Amino acid sequence: MKFAERISRLGTETAFAVSAEAAAYGAQGHTVYPFHLGDMNIPTPENVMEAAVRAMKDGKTGYCPNAGIPKLREVLAADVSASRGVRYGMENVAIQPGGKPTIGKFFQALMNPGDEVLYPSPGYPIYESQIEFLGGIPKPYRYLEGERTFTIDFDMLKRQITPRTRLLVLNDLQNPTGAECSSAEREAMAELVLKHDLFVLCDEAYFDIRYEGHSASFVSLPGMAERCVILYTFSKKFAMTGWRLGASIGPKPVIDIIAKLNVNDESCANHFIQYGAIEGLTGDPRGPRQILRTLQERRDAAVDLLNSVKGVRCQRPNATFYLFPNITDAMRRKGFYDYEDFRRALLHATGVSVCSRIHFGRPLPGETEFYIRLAYSGIHLPAIREGLGKFKAFMQN
Amino acid sequence: MKFAERISRLGTETAFAVSAEAAAYGAQGHTVYPFHLGDMNIPTPENVMEAAVRAMKDGKTGYCPNAGIPKLREVLAADVSASRGVRYGMENVAIQPGGKPTIGKFFQALMNPGDEVLYPSPGYPIYESQIEFLGGIPKPYRYLEGERTFTIDFDMLKRQITPRTRLLVLNDLQNPTGAECSSAEREAMAELVLKHDLFVLCDEAYFDIRYEGHSASFVSLPGMAERCVILYTFSKKFAMTGWRLGASIGPKPVIDIIAKLNVNDESCANHFIQYGAIEGLTGDPRGPRQILRTLQERRDAAVDLLNSVKGVRCQRPNATFYLFPNITDAMRRKGFYDYEDFRRALLHATGVSVCSRIHFGRPLPGETEFYIRLAYSGIHLPAIREGLGKFKAFMQN
Repeated sequence: MKFAERISRLGTETAFAVSAEAAAYGAQGHTVYPFHLGDMNIPTPENVMEAAVRAMKDGKTGYCPNAGIPKLREVLAADVSASRGVRYGMENVAIQPGGKPTIGKFFQALMNPGDEVLYPSPGYPIYESQIEFLGGIPKPYRYLEGERTFTIDFDMLKRQITPRTRLLVLNDLQNPTGAECSSAEREAMAELVLKHDLFVLCDEAYFDIRYEGHSASFVSLPGMAERCVILYTFSKKFAMTGWRLGASIGPKPVIDIIAKLNVNDESCANHFIQYGAIEGLTGDPRGPRQILRTLQERRDAAVDLLNSVKGVRCQRPNATFYLFPNITDAMRRKGFYDYEDFRRALLHATGVSVCSRIHFGRPLPGETEFYIRLAYSGIHLPAIREGLGKFKAFMQN
Repeated sequence: MKFAERISRLGTETAFAVSAEAAAYGAQGHTVYPFHLGDMNIPTPENVMEAAVRAMKDGKTGYCPNAGIPKLREVLAADVSASRGVRYGMENVAIQPGGKPTIGKFFQALMNPGDEVLYPSPGYPIYESQIEFLGGIPKPYRYLEGERTFTIDFDMLKRQITPRTRLLVLNDLQNPTGAECSSAEREAMAELVLKHDLFVLCDEAYFDIRYEGHSASFVSLPGMAERCVILYTFSKKFAMTGWRLGASIGPKPVIDIIAKLNVNDESCANHFIQYGAIEGLTGDPRGPRQILRTLQERRDAAVDLLNSVKGVRCQRPNATFYLFPNITDAMRRKGFYDYEDFRRALLHATGVSVCSRIHFGRPLPGETEFYIRLAYSGIHLPAIREGLGKFKAFMQN
């Protein structure tokens, strides 16, 4: 059997390999502390489940329109318009089976082979995979570790721009660093977008996973709504990761193309769960608020514990459910100079399972600091305390 | 905004335009008889719904493995192995969000730009769309109208084969014709597959929608299981069209690639509905049996009525829920020589909404007969009788 040539360019989420190793270790009877995957062990709000079940039993089991049921497109457009200060209507929304499908469909719609795409590294690995799979040229930009947040390295980003640069991926409220752009950074980015006539994938998967204040969106800046497709997901805000429901939101012409890709790829997202999403957006908001409280408690416990470890420094991001501590000193003191050696040793000594920088795109030349990524969305508070207590003992002995 | 060049090659299901016209006509207060879309107006069996709801409430709301939950992969492999007389294990199954995703993923995995692909025309229009979108060369083969079934035109199919032919799409139990291969045809096809070293997409969406006897699968022939990917869907057998659940089933190496495409495209199918599918495959079989009885009653009523119309002849397919009557004489007598003129006149005179041959791939040179396609899966028996009564009156006056 001979596979198509493009398959040699297809990447994956190497975090799944971490997951498999953790599961294998757990199957031997060991306790595993699962900090590696951004899944959620928090129940979907009751009212969202009830609305979906009602719709199912009410016969919403046939196909729905390719771009989703009109009512969900309407209420989502209204919700996103209000929070971003822009004007989207239902014609700007194509419902998707998850947040992720927007990535591939964005590139299929807008990137020709040979086009260059700016994207964050470290960053969600599917950007890099899909750019290369579809024949684009990946041009990573990096994040620099600051005092309170990571910041985009604009000098590098500018150096990466050439006349063939067509697209930009921006994941403000970022996985894995938890970074958030300042207004000044967003403005500088918008200037580059206009100057170089770029089109932007705004991955806003974590827009609503925010503990204080309000998230700002790149699409709110003048001229940007016309040039951005938002990756929206119901996964995090409503603890619906396994439901697979999200949306592409942007200018009508590209949303029309994305809906035509829906026709070809999967016809439509599951019909009845879309009624659950409507309830989520318009019904009792106590569910998502409780999810945020749960996550914030976990964040604070995890950050405090990590910062109590000698040779580890960890920011306290106001958004996302990820931590990206710098463990360079602690790792060196333990005699580790390789990410995977360290990760496996940690797992087998303590049961603590984490990802590291290398699971978020290919490392860039000149990287000297070592970072691990912890997700606290899939692990309860007592296990966070116990696991990071073991982590501390391991690192300091 | 400039779209990627590949978008100019992206097709669609033009049946959705028919659907929109029917809906617009209905919105004016007219009765519509929806024979145009293969959706189902039959409820999903109670036990399937209950199992899915139980899983949802039981917290199966997080991600599941990219290829689906192991138990579903196991029971589906066992079910398909038993009905096809082959040996699949869970490693041969990648669960998908519907039957359709297997089409694009099959071509992504196995077709290089410039590769030639044999596919049926008339046939499900997404084959043609995805072949061209991904840069392949579409090589249609046609069906000839026989006495009791349509048959593949093997002479034409053989003429279409060149040294660049790599893939074959076979949709035995076919949409739109309802055609079923004879054993001799399947054997002749297998011979061609071996002779020309082809790999095959077996679209078996209607394998279980069969009213008498047993369906046979192309994968049962010697050497074929190693060269086929089955498109499997839960949509029809369990009246789950809007749930979006299906599978790709085939040799492990290509299933591994397809699972890697899952990682990139949508992570996984909805988690909790997979428990509904397990119940469907292993639980009380009365639900799917009742669905078949309902469909068979509709088929018989529709076929009898169609054959009572002067200038119309309609086969009685033993499988699928489609009819593909030859209406050449009746159409000509009414003075119609264009499919769309006829379709619109019929809709606006009677409310009867149908698709025609042109909604199933580009017509081939030399086609002189006229065919419409009626789906009886989404219309109740009284409406079938009433609608086709009006159809008869329209055609004969």
